[in-house]
Amino acid sequence: MKKKLRSKPSKEISYTSEIRVRFVETDPLGIVWHGNYIQYFEDGREAFGRHHGISYLDQKDNNFSTPIVKSNTEHKLPLRYGDIATVKTTYVDSPAAKMIFKYKIFNPEGEIVCTGETVQVFVELGGELSLTIPDFFMKWKRKVGLIDA
Amino acid sequence: MKKKLRSKPSKEISYTSEIRVRFVETDPLGIVWHGNYIQYFEDGREAFGRHHGISYLDQKDNNFSTPIVKSNTEHKLPLRYGDIATVKTTYVDSPAAKMIFKYKIFNPEGEIVCTGETVQVFVELGGELSLTIPDFFMKWKRKVGLIDA
Amino acid sequence: MKKKLRSKPSKEISYTSEIRVRFVETDPLGIVWHGNYIQYFEDGREAFGRHHGISYLDQKDNNFSTPIVKSNTEHKLPLRYGDIATVKTTYVDSPAAKMIFKYKIFNPEGEIVCTGETVQVFVELGGELSLTIPDFFMKWKRKVGLIDA
Amino acid sequence: MKKKLRSKPSKEISYTSEIRVRFVETDPLGIVWHGNYIQYFEDGREAFGRHHGISYLDQKDNNFSTPIVKSNTEHKLPLRYGDIATVKTTYVDSPAAKMIFKYKIFNPEGEIVCTGETVQVFVELGGELSLTIPDFFMKWKRKVGLIDA
Repeated sequence: MKKKLRSKPSKEISYTSEIRVRFVETDPLGIVWHGNYIQYFEDGREAFGRHHGISYLDQKDNNFSTPIVKSNTEHKLPLRYGDIATVKTTYVDSPAAKMIFKYKIFNPEGEIVCTGETVQVFVELGGELSLTIPDFFMKWKRKVGLIDA
Repeated sequence: MKKKLRSKPSKEISYTSEIRVRFVETDPLGIVWHGNYIQYFEDGREAFGRHHGISYLDQKDNNFSTPIVKSNTEHKLPLRYGDIATVKTTYVDSPAAKMIFKYKIFNPEGEIVCTGETVQVFVELGGELSLTIPDFFMKWKRKVGLIDA
Repeated sequence: MKKKLRSKPSKEISYTSEIRVRFVETDPLGIVWHGNYIQYFEDGREAFGRHHGISYLDQKDNNFSTPIVKSNTEHKLPLRYGDIATVKTTYVDSPAAKMIFKYKIFNPEGEIVCTGETVQVFVELGGELSLTIPDFFMKWKRKVGLIDA
Repeated sequence: MKKKLRSKPSKEISYTSEIRVRFVETDPLGIVWHGNYIQYFEDGREAFGRHHGISYLDQKDNNFSTPIVKSNTEHKLPLRYGDIATVKTTYVDSPAAKMIFKYKIFNPEGEIVCTGETVQVFVELGGELSLTIPDFFMKWKRKVGLIDA
């Protein structure tokens, strides 16, 4: 008798936060300069971290840093000065020693203006890349239900 | 007699420029904040433009803007305050109405610290996306030998 | 009978808003880079404008820009990543064709970390400096009670 | 017979460097956002330091940081994208435990666009403000002829 194999879908958790476009973030064309979206992703990721209880400072307390090793952005529509945009930040679980986040930024009309992804790794205080998921991060995964307790 | 058809490899032209890492560009970990590499790519692209005679201002004079619709970065090593890095910016020719640039950033030791790519489109003054390559850009392609005169 | 002359004190209106210190705003010493306080002043000024009904966009609609011609800052204490600071922005009324704002930034403990001032002038669309206070701004002064209606 | 006392004029040394205005540094009005001049001052100060042999890294090696405690700017003319401006940075000697720098920024036509000043103090590694001029800085003063050897 054949047992059906099903790949479990990768689990995700999200958080949606707001950003207000600053004057200084817009360029002579009157729209947000593309490089600022990387900052908006970070704003979203930090709001996610505050909500779901994992932050840069937790990482630091555990003697890890989590540098970004990859990022990509796709720009579909512009944002303008004064716009209040929403950033949906999604953590995409992975069995690897990585943190993967996806981002969707919406304008006040609810249209997608930008999507993107970042990949972070775990680096020990001495500068060594961690090949396994650090304990503090496994604990967090359990706490938020990404893995069984 | 059969004439052999060969797909011509996509032509490329490059330019290498220098950047000096500013204090403000580094973060509490003492390394360049990842979002600043998007700025370094722009620095490289503008140095390329000055050298090869195509610039934001040419585009503007021709009533086009060239917004970035896609970008990606890969981070391999950090840069630190005071480092003089080199940015190799390569224009990758395409038959589409697009500008594709690739970037390689090297540290003072000549190691690759970051690679990336940006894709730009041509937008007319009124906001309309151009589906064909604008005249001023075809002229530039001819001038630099990317297409036959 | 002599009527006592008293110089009326210059009238002021204030607004207090919050900022959260971003990772990117801190430097290798782990504290906010001094130049970012100019941005925090602008954040405070814009929050003031939203609250009291005067904004960059009102100015633009009235064909004026209001460039900053002077600014100063005094730094007393550092701010760190994640700090939620409050910015008290005070408009100091003046009979001249100027906008003067004063700023006080407080850390989470309520201590003053930075004070400063900016002076803006009114410039007409054509680039001409306005020597008199524009109508739209007089209206605003009346609306908020800085001058009698 | 009385000997006339004359206060010696404060000694100064200068250095002039160049900056190229980046696209990202300009705002929707097409001119450099005022807060970026603080960065241009820092660019000038660092170029001064490289030329005259005193830098942030020397300070760090000597276990001092030199935070800016005061700054002011006056804006007279705008700078635009692509402008190559020159920054004249002048160290104004003082008997106090301070570093005072003055700045003049000129546009390509040689007109003054911005002037300013920054004041820095010496802070020891532990966070203590130094009330006397640190040895490494006295050595530097002697080396560049600000005080007699």
